[in-house]
Amino acid sequence: MSTQFGPEYVRALAPYQAGKPIAEVAREFGLEESKIIKLASNENPLGMPESAKLAMQQAVADIGRYPDANGFDLKAAISAKYNVPQDWITLGNGSNDILELAAHAFVQPKQSVIYAQYGFLVYALATQAVGARAIEVKAKDFGHDLQAMAAAIADDTRLIYIANPNNPTGTFLPPAELDAFLKVVPQHVVVVIDEAYNEYLSADLQYESTDWVRTYPNLIVSRTMSKAYGLAGLRVGFAIAQPGVTDLLNRIRQPFNVNSLAQAAAVAALNDKAFLQKSAEINAQGYKQLIAAFDMLGLKYVPSFGNFVLVKVGDDDGAGARVNLALLKKGIIVRPVGNYGLPQWLRITIGLPEENAAFIDALKVVLG
Amino acid sequence: MSTQFGPEYVRALAPYQAGKPIAEVAREFGLEESKIIKLASNENPLGMPESAKLAMQQAVADIGRYPDANGFDLKAAISAKYNVPQDWITLGNGSNDILELAAHAFVQPKQSVIYAQYGFLVYALATQAVGARAIEVKAKDFGHDLQAMAAAIADDTRLIYIANPNNPTGTFLPPAELDAFLKVVPQHVVVVIDEAYNEYLSADLQYESTDWVRTYPNLIVSRTMSKAYGLAGLRVGFAIAQPGVTDLLNRIRQPFNVNSLAQAAAVAALNDKAFLQKSAEINAQGYKQLIAAFDMLGLKYVPSFGNFVLVKVGDDDGAGARVNLALLKKGIIVRPVGNYGLPQWLRITIGLPEENAAFIDALKVVLG
Repeated sequence: MSTQFGPEYVRALAPYQAGKPIAEVAREFGLEESKIIKLASNENPLGMPESAKLAMQQAVADIGRYPDANGFDLKAAISAKYNVPQDWITLGNGSNDILELAAHAFVQPKQSVIYAQYGFLVYALATQAVGARAIEVKAKDFGHDLQAMAAAIADDTRLIYIANPNNPTGTFLPPAELDAFLKVVPQHVVVVIDEAYNEYLSADLQYESTDWVRTYPNLIVSRTMSKAYGLAGLRVGFAIAQPGVTDLLNRIRQPFNVNSLAQAAAVAALNDKAFLQKSAEINAQGYKQLIAAFDMLGLKYVPSFGNFVLVKVGDDDGAGARVNLALLKKGIIVRPVGNYGLPQWLRITIGLPEENAAFIDALKVVLG
Repeated sequence: MSTQFGPEYVRALAPYQAGKPIAEVAREFGLEESKIIKLASNENPLGMPESAKLAMQQAVADIGRYPDANGFDLKAAISAKYNVPQDWITLGNGSNDILELAAHAFVQPKQSVIYAQYGFLVYALATQAVGARAIEVKAKDFGHDLQAMAAAIADDTRLIYIANPNNPTGTFLPPAELDAFLKVVPQHVVVVIDEAYNEYLSADLQYESTDWVRTYPNLIVSRTMSKAYGLAGLRVGFAIAQPGVTDLLNRIRQPFNVNSLAQAAAVAALNDKAFLQKSAEINAQGYKQLIAAFDMLGLKYVPSFGNFVLVKVGDDDGAGARVNLALLKKGIIVRPVGNYGLPQWLRITIGLPEENAAFIDALKVVLG
């Protein structure tokens, strides 16, 4: 037997399975890239904002230089937008980085981390990567059961991940419930509220989680610019938390985790309200288009507050994989969620109207 | 007293001090950005290659999409250039990411990690970030003492960092010495050879460390595109190792650690031999220019094999900081190395001829 390197918990890690890139599907299935529709990774179908593209082009001259490790301009923009001091901000290489930094900064091997069944898979991966014990709390109606999560807190619990809205189920936790939860979590347990899909919430559902950050020194609010802001390819996320927690995240953070172009583009995108509004509008329309089709086809789905819908495509545990493969062959990339324990379901990212229509047409054919 | 979060070893971390960005020095000292010369971060004074810029511009259309988590095109380019299979390659957000991944993948808290005195500071930070015990081996003539490092291997040693050439001292280990070292390291101890500055070695000193990777299953060769390739702002590095080690690095790696534009630019830069050669040439000339000035000024320096020179600017322990501040006020950014235990020295990145000349003029004035 060959030498084994590294701790058992690292060797047992199953890496995150990303949505299949268009180029990969083209190679694998012999399709033309231009004819492939990707509704697999909850990306913005509008692409990146023009404002961000311009900002990026101006930053190209400096690429021979290291990025600003302190992210001065980007932190200033975040600080202004969310009305928090700059030393409350941690920049991440996407919010994936924020989620991992939290595990590395606050959890030692064998301590425990809490997250929900059907919660975003990175919570489980980050927990395992630091050799911690996972406490997965059974979901309630596909969403987080906050009372059960509070009851699950153990003496050795150091971190809790909450997604709102949750990916891949699209469920939403009303702010009053979240606030009640935060009140009962012991102050030495760090809570990450992952708000990757916040910008898709309708105005009546929006809430100010940064207000809670002022109240709870153990709270981290995590945001991404990969969804509504359209910058998935650039990798920008950020955390807002009080200085005690922020300081530790920044000690662990790689100094150049967000690259120069990403920083420049993010400053522009953060202030591009028109693009954000257009993204939310096209998403709301696409959601109606998808669920109308699911209703017509008699398919069960979970009502979604994000830019995707979880839909049940069959009653047997092979259904998700089977329908996914059939869709791939037709050049439609969606996301199977068998690795979430949802083998009968698929997660469909809401695309442009014509992309949604093409998916619906293909789905009809596949389901016969 | 407020609540303390996280393990003691995280709370005790002193974050990496990056070279001061030009914009920051301009703000701090009231200078014009265009008049500031930065010789602080071992960046390429030529900036990025034009070929990489073009490749990046073509990739902009896809920024709304996530990067290819498997880095297909970039791994293909690395595979072709170094004649290794694609499953021997790990992509990093700069080689900083590779160095940290190695610690996270192979070391548990309280196990030990070996590196050299005056070795690149990230080795110490990565060791501390995983709660491991550091074994810092005394330097020999400012370089690594490989015999002492081999003798320092303890039962609980899991990882050894070697820099060749080393930053910030610029020292070089002849390949025969390195090979002899690799022969005596136990196979369960992972060795990282950090070759960030390899491309600056003259043809007669070049060696093929990928040949060693074929021999030693515990070896990781780490490369960066932030130096000779001119892509510091984009964050691209990579590791070459046998599949056993590579698989574990990739389990720990964040799936989207290298962004889309960085991947596209890196493919182009990897194949741009003309740019690489020009970078090495201008560096060799600049080195002669700097050491001629140091000789004339009677300043001691460490002969360098990288794109920087470590020079002694005084005999008292305040010398480095004092001269650094005086240079900053004149708009010249270099790197103080007091945090390396070298308070009488400064590290000067080799710039363009006119940048080197401006630094030399300023240094003469500052030293009186």
